[in-house]
Amino acid sequence: MKKLINDPAGVVRDALGGIAAAHPQLRVDTEQRIVVRADAPRPGKVGVVSGGGSGHEPLHGAFVGIGMLDAACPGEVFTSPVPDQVLAATKAVEGGAGVVHVVKNYTGDVLNFQMAAELAHDEGAKVESVLVDDDVAVQDSLYTAGRRGTGATVVVEKVAGALAESGGGIGQVAGVGRKANERSRSFGIALTACTTPAAGTPTFELGEDEIELGIGIHGEPGRQRRKIAPAGELAELAVAAILEDMPLDRDDPALVVVNGMGGTPLVELYVVMNDVARVLGERGVPIARSLVGNYVTSLDMAGFSLTLTRLDEELLRLWDAPVRTPALRWGM
Amino acid sequence: MKKLINDPAGVVRDALGGIAAAHPQLRVDTEQRIVVRADAPRPGKVGVVSGGGSGHEPLHGAFVGIGMLDAACPGEVFTSPVPDQVLAATKAVEGGAGVVHVVKNYTGDVLNFQMAAELAHDEGAKVESVLVDDDVAVQDSLYTAGRRGTGATVVVEKVAGALAESGGGIGQVAGVGRKANERSRSFGIALTACTTPAAGTPTFELGEDEIELGIGIHGEPGRQRRKIAPAGELAELAVAAILEDMPLDRDDPALVVVNGMGGTPLVELYVVMNDVARVLGERGVPIARSLVGNYVTSLDMAGFSLTLTRLDEELLRLWDAPVRTPALRWGM
Repeated sequence: MKKLINDPAGVVRDALGGIAAAHPQLRVDTEQRIVVRADAPRPGKVGVVSGGGSGHEPLHGAFVGIGMLDAACPGEVFTSPVPDQVLAATKAVEGGAGVVHVVKNYTGDVLNFQMAAELAHDEGAKVESVLVDDDVAVQDSLYTAGRRGTGATVVVEKVAGALAESGGGIGQVAGVGRKANERSRSFGIALTACTTPAAGTPTFELGEDEIELGIGIHGEPGRQRRKIAPAGELAELAVAAILEDMPLDRDDPALVVVNGMGGTPLVELYVVMNDVARVLGERGVPIARSLVGNYVTSLDMAGFSLTLTRLDEELLRLWDAPVRTPALRWGM
Repeated sequence: MKKLINDPAGVVRDALGGIAAAHPQLRVDTEQRIVVRADAPRPGKVGVVSGGGSGHEPLHGAFVGIGMLDAACPGEVFTSPVPDQVLAATKAVEGGAGVVHVVKNYTGDVLNFQMAAELAHDEGAKVESVLVDDDVAVQDSLYTAGRRGTGATVVVEKVAGALAESGGGIGQVAGVGRKANERSRSFGIALTACTTPAAGTPTFELGEDEIELGIGIHGEPGRQRRKIAPAGELAELAVAAILEDMPLDRDDPALVVVNGMGGTPLVELYVVMNDVARVLGERGVPIARSLVGNYVTSLDMAGFSLTLTRLDEELLRLWDAPVRTPALRWGM
């Protein structure tokens, strides 16, 4: 294993130190392991908190900032944050209007966020939870009952954060997050496995010319293993898998996220974007907005995931709203 | 070789198609192979053009936009753009005030940009050229007489673009670009080689536990091959190599760019940033600004480069100025 780390057990601590050094506008508590907007808590503003295992950067820590998350709580690599950590993040951003948790659907995350929500409730804070389960590839998986939460997380966090920023109440913020999740589907394809710092070896083995369709963001098994194919064919497969589950037509302007898994260079993601645009064009689905880059990654895995969100006027407006985080920034 | 491509010969064409699909605010001419700001040419504004081989994305195409480049001309992978292409980009942005070329120091790039500048001159356009040669690792290299142009390119393009946006004349824009280059130094470390689509095999071989110090952005040889070491040690090495060439002290606020080579995930870059900040702190060098992510890449190479720029008031102001490109965006 060759990685730019010091110690497999210290990766999250060191990366948090790097976030603190690079982004003085964020408050990083390396003891509690939370990343918080410097101006939190803001009285009267609904707080938006997310978290989960590390190894998916920029998710979640680099999505903290104006118009998106108020705080993030990163667990160890591919490991849920502990309830105390989620509670600390929740309390750090609670400004009297309640807090919305954005939780990817993995059993550990769901349990620990729920426990933290109960603890917060005992201390007088209102908490609502939004579950993200957008991955159409498999029904249940290694770590999940039901669908996994993957690429749509960035969409849910963006629109919920935007509504919270503009004064939405806790029910509205949670509601729009749930709507974004309901209208989003994702499908991922891996060219290589990822290697966790602790294990030091790839999470699974793929042959020299093999790829895996329908992978999750932790190297969980997908639907099928097959030979590598041209990007156009893979784009076709990903679009088909999504549209089979959520039909879109010419009246459904889509947000398209072509997301890199961490080890794939941007030039390849643009090639995929080109093919996704062609395939959607052939099917008559208009692309209203798009995002191409590494947003919800799986350590050093090579590959991509495609997320399509069926926008409506509200989601489009909230997607376009100003945002200022390390990894997503526009309009201000 | 597993890559998200359709055809090794069509990577640049397809990626340009993806840029066009993802960024409707840019004008992409896939025939001429240029990416141009939609509002170019702007009368009275100095145009800023850069280009070079593809495989370094987001450099240069995704740095086109308000406050940075007016146009980019990507060559084939690791291959200089042809003079006609550079000329087309130059003419597309020439608004009567002249055009500044930002050229990385590689023999082919230098020759082809020079030829294009002469052709543009014959057609009545003033062109000034800024050469980027920031890499302290080696004096000459496979493709270069003198030092290679690497990570500092993003700094030069940003500050020159900002000055052009705010109405600077051609001499001023070129001058500030040259100043940024003179005050910048870079050093890169590879954990793996990269694989070009055309060759299909890695450009060099590194053992399971080997790294190469002082690599360029095309897999050119560096200074030394050695065993992998903790990130802290590598950060120390990179800082030392740079400061040996350009001493910095407490009166030299630095811009720090921790740049991924394309195959390294963000979490590792933040670990490196943490160590770079520590090392600079020990040496008393204040960090004024920083940038962590994949900006000047080398296809799928794993590793990082460090760029330090000795800021002055003008460079700091121009770095902070609003910018709106696909890959770099703030202040608007």
